[in-house]
Amino acid sequence: MRIALGVEYDGTDFLGWQRQQHGPSVQATLERALSFVADAPIEVVCAGRTDAGVHARCQVVHFDTKAERAPRGWMLGVSSRLPDSVCVLWAQTVSEDFHARFGARARRYRYVILNRRVRPALDARYVAWERQALDAQAMHDAAQSLVGEHDFNAFRTVACQAKSPVRTVHEISVRREHEHVIVEIQANAFLHHMVRNIVGSLLPIGRGEQPTDWLAQLLAGRDRALAGPTAAAAGLTFLQPLYPAESGLALALCLP
Amino acid sequence: MRIALGVEYDGTDFLGWQRQQHGPSVQATLERALSFVADAPIEVVCAGRTDAGVHARCQVVHFDTKAERAPRGWMLGVSSRLPDSVCVLWAQTVSEDFHARFGARARRYRYVILNRRVRPALDARYVAWERQALDAQAMHDAAQSLVGEHDFNAFRTVACQAKSPVRTVHEISVRREHEHVIVEIQANAFLHHMVRNIVGSLLPIGRGEQPTDWLAQLLAGRDRALAGPTAAAAGLTFLQPLYPAESGLALALCLP
Repeated sequence: MRIALGVEYDGTDFLGWQRQQHGPSVQATLERALSFVADAPIEVVCAGRTDAGVHARCQVVHFDTKAERAPRGWMLGVSSRLPDSVCVLWAQTVSEDFHARFGARARRYRYVILNRRVRPALDARYVAWERQALDAQAMHDAAQSLVGEHDFNAFRTVACQAKSPVRTVHEISVRREHEHVIVEIQANAFLHHMVRNIVGSLLPIGRGEQPTDWLAQLLAGRDRALAGPTAAAAGLTFLQPLYPAESGLALALCLP
Repeated sequence: MRIALGVEYDGTDFLGWQRQQHGPSVQATLERALSFVADAPIEVVCAGRTDAGVHARCQVVHFDTKAERAPRGWMLGVSSRLPDSVCVLWAQTVSEDFHARFGARARRYRYVILNRRVRPALDARYVAWERQALDAQAMHDAAQSLVGEHDFNAFRTVACQAKSPVRTVHEISVRREHEHVIVEIQANAFLHHMVRNIVGSLLPIGRGEQPTDWLAQLLAGRDRALAGPTAAAAGLTFLQPLYPAESGLALALCLP
């Protein structure tokens, strides 16, 4: 049978989602706990792989198992075998054709910037820091040029393994909440480092170093070398994937 | 001259505010950094001592020094000598009769409860966890009995060194924000463990195990042994002290 899980994690102390030889990953940590509960090796597929230091509010994974357990049994059993930085929010039996990665129609990310003169002490794991005053409205206006289907080559890392650089951004917003500037973006899928590279190019616009139409120029130029640096991992959280209603996943539970 | 500082800290890895022989304290950490910058031993007085694991959004301290530095010099110099978990938000020269502790007319605390079936992975440093559904409105209604001048003996730890158990609560609110229940309380001053003991007695009311008027009964009974257990430290953040306008401290800058 196929099981889907909602997984929350603090990515600070992981090398990222994906299994690595040289250190802890969320995937290996989760698979170890699942394999213990199933009493057999389990491999998981996730909706969106995250980099080192990037967090998830509701990562979704699926796996196949012959172990017969109620969803609640998976949730509680696995959570008890996980470190404090990872937990299972829910478990659900899904049909054999549900696929956490290929079935997802969209992914949502949030990027949080602490915008003040002093570095963070509280919440340092969850925010990027920008000391110069940011114009969130200018950033928001600039970001609207990304909405729609585009070649996002300007915002992908050279290490990106995707065959096509074309992605569809459904929406992107930049807003200020007191000392924080918050970027939220939803797309059908993301290239490697795409959110952090977009934020890295929104920052010079927010600081007034580049005009609002700079982002549209970068996008059109498709040249990664002209765009801003990759923004820090700590500010980024994968909020959730979105699946079609017929998948039966009640994913509204994850948010906000 | 006398200097006041606003200090933010993540209390997770400290034994609390106060200097201790057997481990790291925020006070000793801050005094070490200040002494380095002043090139002379510095001792600080704080507005509100916090326990192990308790955080501060804007602790206020004062100290006396013969070192001549601009406020900005103190802020930057000290912050560069502090660990990631502590920073100086602002520095200000104050008059010789300013006193961070005795001059404060009120203190504000916030207590955050993650109210869901699954333990936290994200934000685990900053929330307490309650798995049973809480009725925040019942907690809010119950809490109103604390407003005003009362003997808070029911909510002080036996280790409390205060001469009088009488304190004045200016306001207390309990509200729900999605999965979080947030308690905010302002009083002229607090007894040792007072906020966490109040929250520990609000929780049984929120769970429906005690009636709304239980808190008023506990308060009137003045017996610590009848009240709920002390709530976890992680959920508690000292927001800020409040000073009279004539002190010249522009403390609105700290919040929210």
